[in-house]
Parts: sequence; C-alpha cells; structure tokens
Amino acid sequence: MRTDTEHFRCEIEDGIATLRLDRPDRKNPLTFDSYAELRDWFRALSYDDSVKAVVFGSNGGNFCSGGDVHDIIGPLTKMSMKELLAFTRMTGDLVKAMLGCGTPIIAAADGVCVGAGAIIAMASDLRIATPEARTAFLFTRVGLAGCDMGACAMLPRIIGQGRAAELLYTGRTMSAEEGAAWGFWNRLVPAAELDDAARDLAARIAAGPNFGHMMTKTMLNQEWSMSLDQAIEAEAQAQAICMQTADFTRAFEAFAAKEKPAFEGD
Amino acid sequence: MRTDTEHFRCEIEDGIATLRLDRPDRKNPLTFDSYAELRDWFRALSYDDSVKAVVFGSNGGNFCSGGDVHDIIGPLTKMSMKELLAFTRMTGDLVKAMLGCGTPIIAAADGVCVGAGAIIAMASDLRIATPEARTAFLFTRVGLAGCDMGACAMLPRIIGQGRAAELLYTGRTMSAEEGAAWGFWNRLVPAAELDDAARDLAARIAAGPNFGHMMTKTMLNQEWSMSLDQAIEAEAQAQAICMQTADFTRAFEAFAAKEKPAFEGD
Amino acid sequence: MRTDTEHFRCEIEDGIATLRLDRPDRKNPLTFDSYAELRDWFRALSYDDSVKAVVFGSNGGNFCSGGDVHDIIGPLTKMSMKELLAFTRMTGDLVKAMLGCGTPIIAAADGVCVGAGAIIAMASDLRIATPEARTAFLFTRVGLAGCDMGACAMLPRIIGQGRAAELLYTGRTMSAEEGAAWGFWNRLVPAAELDDAARDLAARIAAGPNFGHMMTKTMLNQEWSMSLDQAIEAEAQAQAICMQTADFTRAFEAFAAKEKPAFEGD
Repeated sequence: MRTDTEHFRCEIEDGIATLRLDRPDRKNPLTFDSYAELRDWFRALSYDDSVKAVVFGSNGGNFCSGGDVHDIIGPLTKMSMKELLAFTRMTGDLVKAMLGCGTPIIAAADGVCVGAGAIIAMASDLRIATPEARTAFLFTRVGLAGCDMGACAMLPRIIGQGRAAELLYTGRTMSAEEGAAWGFWNRLVPAAELDDAARDLAARIAAGPNFGHMMTKTMLNQEWSMSLDQAIEAEAQAQAICMQTADFTRAFEAFAAKEKPAFEGD
Repeated sequence: MRTDTEHFRCEIEDGIATLRLDRPDRKNPLTFDSYAELRDWFRALSYDDSVKAVVFGSNGGNFCSGGDVHDIIGPLTKMSMKELLAFTRMTGDLVKAMLGCGTPIIAAADGVCVGAGAIIAMASDLRIATPEARTAFLFTRVGLAGCDMGACAMLPRIIGQGRAAELLYTGRTMSAEEGAAWGFWNRLVPAAELDDAARDLAARIAAGPNFGHMMTKTMLNQEWSMSLDQAIEAEAQAQAICMQTADFTRAFEAFAAKEKPAFEGD
Repeated sequence: MRTDTEHFRCEIEDGIATLRLDRPDRKNPLTFDSYAELRDWFRALSYDDSVKAVVFGSNGGNFCSGGDVHDIIGPLTKMSMKELLAFTRMTGDLVKAMLGCGTPIIAAADGVCVGAGAIIAMASDLRIATPEARTAFLFTRVGLAGCDMGACAMLPRIIGQGRAAELLYTGRTMSAEEGAAWGFWNRLVPAAELDDAARDLAARIAAGPNFGHMMTKTMLNQEWSMSLDQAIEAEAQAQAICMQTADFTRAFEAFAAKEKPAFEGD
C-alpha cells in the first residue's frame, strides 16, 4: 500500500495503517482531492494483504470538519446535475470502498467529528473517541438532507431509528457521553491515550485471524438486507470456507498444545 | 390544510400543525372515524407546502388509549374477513400516510400512550414525553398478535429486537425512563413544559430546509430494506437533487456573509 | 413433544418445556449429536400445540460453552468442504428451527454463554440472565469468522451494529451489566431466582394468546427484510387472521364482563 499520499497522512507499521487528514489548522476538512485519494487508497486495500487493520485517526485535536465550505460547498452551488451526481457518487464511493476493503477500520476521534467526518467514523467498523469528541450531521445546516453518503442507512443501525432521526433532522451535536451510551462509540478514552488505545485495538485485530475478519466484515455489511433464513445460509457457506483455512487448524493445534495460536492469515 | 376536522383537534400556526385526539375523558381513544380522518389528513399533507412540521400532542394528560374497546373491538368481533382486512388496512394506511407525508412529525406524549396510540408515536419521526408517559403494546391483552400497523417492523428498529420482543409478547408497560434510556423517547420534559418543548422542536425543524427534511424522511423510511450499496447510491441521487435547491445556495451565501441562513423550502 | 431426549434434558410441565444441556462438568458444550437432536426437537415443535412456551435453561451454573473443542473442532479440521457445509448448515438449521417453531423461547443464562451457546441465546425470543453471565462470540479465537449461525444478522438487530462489530471481531466477553444496558438481556436476576424468573415469564406467555404469539414471532423474524410498506400490509393480513380467532372474542367478552380473559389458543 502507498504511504506517499498527497492529501492525507499515511503510516504503516506492523501491518497497521494509520491515516490522518492533515489540515489541523482548519480541523481537517475534506476536499475534492482528499475524497478521491481516500477512495482510491481504500479500493487498493481490497487487493492488499500486508495491511491487517486501519486506524483513521485525529490530528491536532480534531478528527474531521467535513466537506470544506469554500473548497467544496461553494463550487457545488454552481454545478450542473451531472456534475453534482458525480460528486455525491464520489463521496458515496469512499464509503463503499471503506465497507468493501475487507480490512477492519478503527476510527479514533478527538474533537470535531462532523458532516462527512461523522460519516467516515460511521463507515469504520469500530469507533473510539475522547470525552471531547463532538459529532454532528451538519447537512441540514447547509440546506441539504440528512441522507448523505449512506447516513440514513448506517446511523439507525448503530444508534436506533429515533436517535438517528433527531441527529439527522436537527444537525445537533451528539456529545461523547451520548455517543458512548448509545453505542456509537465503543469506548471513550482520554485524549492523551487515544492513539495508544486505537493502536492496541488495531493490534489485537491485526493479530488475526485476518481471513476470518475479512469475512466478518463482509457479512456484517451484507446481511441487513437479507432475510434471516438467507443470512443463516450465507453464514453457513462463509464459515465453511473459513473452516478450510490453515488458521482454523492452527487454532486447534495451539489449543491442543495449550498454546496461544499464531495466525498467519491463510 | 383543513383545520375543521371533526374527529380530532387541529390547529395550524406559523407552519406548525398541532393535532390532538379529543376525548380526554376517555384518554383519547381512536374510533373508526378518527382513524379514517387522520389517514386522510396526512394523505392530504403530502401535497401541501404550508405545513412544515406536525406535532401530535396529548390532551387532558394523556396521549391516546388506542382503539376504543366498545366502538372498535366489539364490532370487530362480529366482522367477516373481508371487513376485518378493510379495517386493518385502514389502520395500516394511517401509518403509511404518516410515513409518506413528507413532513416531520413530533409525538408529544403525556400519560397513557398505548395500543394504536403507541403505534402513532412510533410512526412519528421524533418523540418527546413526560416522566408520566406509560407506553404499552396491548394487542396481546385483547387476544391478538403484537404485529399491528407495522409494530414488528418499527419497534425493533427504534429500541432493538430483544426489548421490542418483550414489549410485544407481554404487553407490559414501558416506563418513561425506560423509553428514554432505550431511545424510544428522544427526551423527557415535565408535563407543564411538554407543549412548549414540542413547539420549540417543531419550530426548529419548520425553519427548514424543508425540502431537505422531506428527503431525509423519505430515505430514513426507505433504506431499511436496501443493501448498503443501494442505499449509498440512493443517497447520492437524493442529495444531488437537494444540491440544486435554492436553499443550498442560500446557506452558502449566508455562510459567506457570516449570517444565519433563512430557508424558503425551494 | 418428546421428553426422552438423549443429548439434552427436557421436561414439560403446564405447557412449558424446559431444556437444558447436560454436561455441567464441562459447562455444557454442544456436540454433533446435541445439535442434531435440538434441531429435530424444535422442528417437531412447529407441529405441536401442547407446548406454549420454551425455557432454554442453564445447568450447574452455566448456560453453554459452545461447540466442544475435542468433539467438534478437532474433527472439523479434517473434513472436506462438502462435510463442512453439511455441518455449518446443521448448526444454522438449529437457529432456523428455533426461529420457525412458532413458540416463544426464553433463554435463561447463568455463567458461561459463549460461542454457539451465545447464538442459542440470540435465537431465543427473550433473554434473562444472572449477574454472573459471561457472553462471548469466540469464533475468531478459533481462527474463524464472526459470521456463524446468523450472528452477523441477529446481534446487530439486538444491540446495534457498533457493539456487535466489537464483540464479533474481538471475541471479548460482554459482561452481564453490559448485556442488560445494551438490550441483549431483558433483565438480570440473582442466580437463585433464575429458574423461577424464567418460569414466571414463560407462564405469562404460555397463558396466551398462543395463536397471537405465534404470529408475533413469525412477523418479528420476517419483517427485517421487508420495506415498511410491505411490513404494514403483511401485518394488516396477519392481524386480520388473528381477529377471527376465538381468543379475540374471548378477550372482548371478558372485558365486557370485567373479567380476566382465559385464552384457549384458537
């Protein structure tokens, strides 16, 4: 995987990629360029075996302030429908790429986490935050609908339909405490510990079984629109595939030897 | 929109319609007539531009006691299957009309909120209540199933499958505190403040962007049965449409001028 | 219904069947035989009228330790794909049989409730536990995916997508307190009261209306993959059917006579 990204920071160490938007003076807004580069990076990830977990971290005390008003919203007000749809599809394609990359993603949010930034947190698999994290779906504030990049599908599945509706209609801020109580954040940690906590969680996941995690991610995202019977059959097939991985045998042999299994991802 | 309704009270002020069932001596039961008139009122609302938000309020300390035992349940026990299906479809059509009207609805519940009354609260987009609100899905108490007017679809999406199952099988009362902790109620307020709180929330939503809110409501209700990929594409199209509204431009211009945007709904 | 089961204990009293796995010295693991016999028992239940509620209880301070490592996991590591799929389909068929049996199931969990044991709890309709209940989805620990027996479909619908993802990726233990706060457990009771609490809840449900409960169960499990409009129509039909049961008339007549209705299930 490339780490020489232009529009966001990317470091890879011990199989864990850490991404950060990099305009901390402006609370890390997204731009046309960073959307596209992120989309392409996550698309490439689906063919990569070296990165086992991704941390989408904060920078300078903030996660992401969403689409930049001057760089994005201004130009959008002047676009044709064809151009607008190309833009909204590009932002949606970032979410699709994150959901489809096959690698667990951990959002680690401090401070501002709003607009498309809140969507990036939602499109991650696990989410930790600091008590200072302030999350808001600001789309209505700029005259738009709450349905942006899959928000009306993802947010109700995480925090329930009633709470999602309030956040999406009013654009009000969800405090970190609310987010933890409602299941949006998996855990709150002090800001000074955020990076370590994210890395520890990522390391736990990166330890594998990575093929299994890829399948878990696939099925968690596919089964909402299946019937329960279809989901059960889909999992019977998915898990049978996993039972032919060497990691399954490794786990059994380690158990028999009273050792901790060392997974290798195949 | 008509305010000369016969079977419920309706007032419209500043673009906010406030509905109240009006048999407070009997805790506001529903009747064949009020079901039908409510259904027709919400159906008409989908073609109306003047009402920007609806409050479904309480009356005399109670929200709604559900289908009247004498006026509804008695006659139902004597009906043919054809007549029964016509009735259950009429009640379902009220829910469909509320979901499909394009205008955010705020339920403001005090006291008794049971049976079809609890369904009306669920079919609203946002829900506030007093600490005295007592919610119950009483269908099993009258020998019926918990699946009434969409309850088995809507309740699990709001409070989760396990809690929904308990309420629907047992018919037990959900206290206001439980309802708030579980995300059924967005907020609890003292009874003396209920009407003001509902009006304030309605005013915030009525301030717009109304076209965006209509789209948010549409997508929140449509996306549960879509795949995530379908939902993301659907939102790309929906939001592109919203980006061609004048309210989007108004918001950008207000931002550039460091003013608060004044939305006009187009 | 048979009570002479070989691979689990089964007692039936007052229309309530109580099942318990019966290897308490090993925390009640599942075996190929107990999977198959449970599947067949629940399949038979869908044609039975005498059992009105099922309690899936604990034994010796534990609920179930999942698939036995020696009896199940060892053999699986040596199987062909055809054999593996036959196994994963058998385990999935147990869940399908529990979901499709038409009778409410109450899981009553003490102590260890892990792996396929946690799935059995999820496939139940209601869940109560002791403060000592420790629930974990251990599949990743043995090198597999979290998608097992429908877990990626059921768990998010009960506790939300974010919490489900954490449990399924990490395999970490969900404490009883977390499970209650998140809606996995309907209620916690002291271990000494677990059996009584489960029986009381079962008795309340067994008192009927049983036809209605069967329909509630059917619809709770079918409507996740329907659109809201489809669900509302499906419930209009389902409830119209229930309105032609004698239990509906019994309830009305009892109400008119100011008595408690005695349901008979037809």
